[in-house]
Amino acid sequence: MIKYSKIKSPTFVINTEIVRENIKTMMDKLPSTCVFRPHFKTHDNKETAAIFKEFGVTHITVSSVEMALYFRLLGFKDITVAFPVNLREHRNLNKLSKNTKLGLTFSNPESVNIIAGKPLIKAGAWIETDTGYNRSGIAWDNYDQIEKCINRINETKHLSFRGFLTHNGSTYNLITKEDILRSSEESISKMKSLKEKYAAYNPEISVGDTPGCSLMTDFEGIDEVRPGNFVYYDFMQLEKKVCKVSSVAATVLCPVVDINRERYEIVIHGGAVHFSKEFVKSGNSQSFGRVIKHIGKTVDEVDEDIISLSQEHGVIKIEHGNIADYSVGDLVEIIPVHSCLTANLMKGKTLHYR
Amino acid sequence: MIKYSKIKSPTFVINTEIVRENIKTMMDKLPSTCVFRPHFKTHDNKETAAIFKEFGVTHITVSSVEMALYFRLLGFKDITVAFPVNLREHRNLNKLSKNTKLGLTFSNPESVNIIAGKPLIKAGAWIETDTGYNRSGIAWDNYDQIEKCINRINETKHLSFRGFLTHNGSTYNLITKEDILRSSEESISKMKSLKEKYAAYNPEISVGDTPGCSLMTDFEGIDEVRPGNFVYYDFMQLEKKVCKVSSVAATVLCPVVDINRERYEIVIHGGAVHFSKEFVKSGNSQSFGRVIKHIGKTVDEVDEDIISLSQEHGVIKIEHGNIADYSVGDLVEIIPVHSCLTANLMKGKTLHYR
Repeated sequence: MIKYSKIKSPTFVINTEIVRENIKTMMDKLPSTCVFRPHFKTHDNKETAAIFKEFGVTHITVSSVEMALYFRLLGFKDITVAFPVNLREHRNLNKLSKNTKLGLTFSNPESVNIIAGKPLIKAGAWIETDTGYNRSGIAWDNYDQIEKCINRINETKHLSFRGFLTHNGSTYNLITKEDILRSSEESISKMKSLKEKYAAYNPEISVGDTPGCSLMTDFEGIDEVRPGNFVYYDFMQLEKKVCKVSSVAATVLCPVVDINRERYEIVIHGGAVHFSKEFVKSGNSQSFGRVIKHIGKTVDEVDEDIISLSQEHGVIKIEHGNIADYSVGDLVEIIPVHSCLTANLMKGKTLHYR
Repeated sequence: MIKYSKIKSPTFVINTEIVRENIKTMMDKLPSTCVFRPHFKTHDNKETAAIFKEFGVTHITVSSVEMALYFRLLGFKDITVAFPVNLREHRNLNKLSKNTKLGLTFSNPESVNIIAGKPLIKAGAWIETDTGYNRSGIAWDNYDQIEKCINRINETKHLSFRGFLTHNGSTYNLITKEDILRSSEESISKMKSLKEKYAAYNPEISVGDTPGCSLMTDFEGIDEVRPGNFVYYDFMQLEKKVCKVSSVAATVLCPVVDINRERYEIVIHGGAVHFSKEFVKSGNSQSFGRVIKHIGKTVDEVDEDIISLSQEHGVIKIEHGNIADYSVGDLVEIIPVHSCLTANLMKGKTLHYR
């Protein structure tokens, strides 16, 4: 139980019971042929990593070499860095590869060429495949570039070709379940076509974004999934109906420090250094976070939005509740728009409960 | 000198020579009657604090009790917390007030009432005055609320009334020098009217936002200024012409990890966990950071924008330079949109030079 009277400043709260439910729900629907390799960039902390361990999770994904080194120290030995390989971190990659089953992501033939020329004990090589998100990686139908990568990987003694890896981030920009599922299907069908085309090399396909993985039910033919955000979810996923409010595992408790009763606004200690400046559009307005509980005179389920954020201040518009119910010194509990960014900002300010 | 070959991952660079110039420029234009109380929330680090000390700065502003405790440990003994007093941090405020000339900011009579009832060794009490920014504080012409605060402060033995404090953040939303100066003049004239109206209590007026303080030349009648961002400046201030590029003291070096030559885009390791998600509008598009140098085959002055950011990835559109000049493994040097948020995110990843 949280002792609300002890909360002084913005405090990140993780509901470990919900974390367990979210992990179980995701694992339960994967067929035994599909490896669960959750992305650890969302939580990036040892407490949530320990919960994954309870479920027997040993294969993980990270987004930086720094994060790979951190989780290696925590005992994870099978780590894919799902980020275009950063050539400047070659020494750390080398160090990691000595005692880790390391997966590297190559997003262009130049990077394969350069890494191939460096001493590296051993790494699995994934080709980052762009199925339409247009961020990084090789377009799924640019066979010339793909083959250049495969050939160079296969020529290189210390690299072993693993297959094709994609992040279909397009689903983050879609609103409805139907559109998210359609986008996932399209992306996966492109990945499956590569698996077939290059069957001679026995490639695996690795996919995984939280909106897609949360809504999909059929994972046949997919070798690996790498969702991350699902462990906490957040207001962005809630808005897309990718999760229910009862599946949101991370919130922030913020003290009320000022109230403007004429403008129906309350000011909290809770700003861009706690929430980042990510927002979701809601009609013509923007929400930087959704208030779900008011811990003051009464404990209520509430439904208000942070309408603006500066460095340490957040302004909440009271549109549904009664501003007379709020007092300076009360606490509000807020679902962050993007839990990955909030978790990063709130490192070391975490309180677990349940 | 920076050894570019040693840079592996996103690295925050502070040009200490420019920091000194920015501090000197600001101090030189203040009359001797105006106290310089810079806001330390921008840098929030001991290295830049040490440079302020070189200039004899002993009065500082912070935005949280945590930050006040940090700078107290670094030897600063005259600290104003320019944030609505957080009643839940009463114990730490009490602790601080024992060995610090502490300034507290009251944004409503309720907070004065509550603090008045708590044991607190001694604090100066400022009334946060809203001159039109509409974030926190009492409206400058709400004399009833202001007088309630003054009376309660004056009845309270451990509080001494200091005067009126405002943050005219409206200037951050204005584009031209003329509009920024007009907004500053309006805000200051409201503050001066309060100083006159309540002359019997001998109040001071404390103002300070970087756009206003950087452009103003006349500080007569202002008792104290509290700019913060000016120490580093950033792309937001550059876009408003509040500073020149030669006054920007904080940049981030980011490795190039992927290149899409068809889309004229390069992907860097440098994302929302380094830059936050603050952006400036530039025509119909958004910039999440301005590239000013390319450290690769050649060292060029460049002028490109980060057009999108995810957690660790940044995508830069090459619109002015030649994409053929970029290679994976190169570095780009980027002016962040909002240096305060970047400095917070890059804590512990700082490299000083010059």
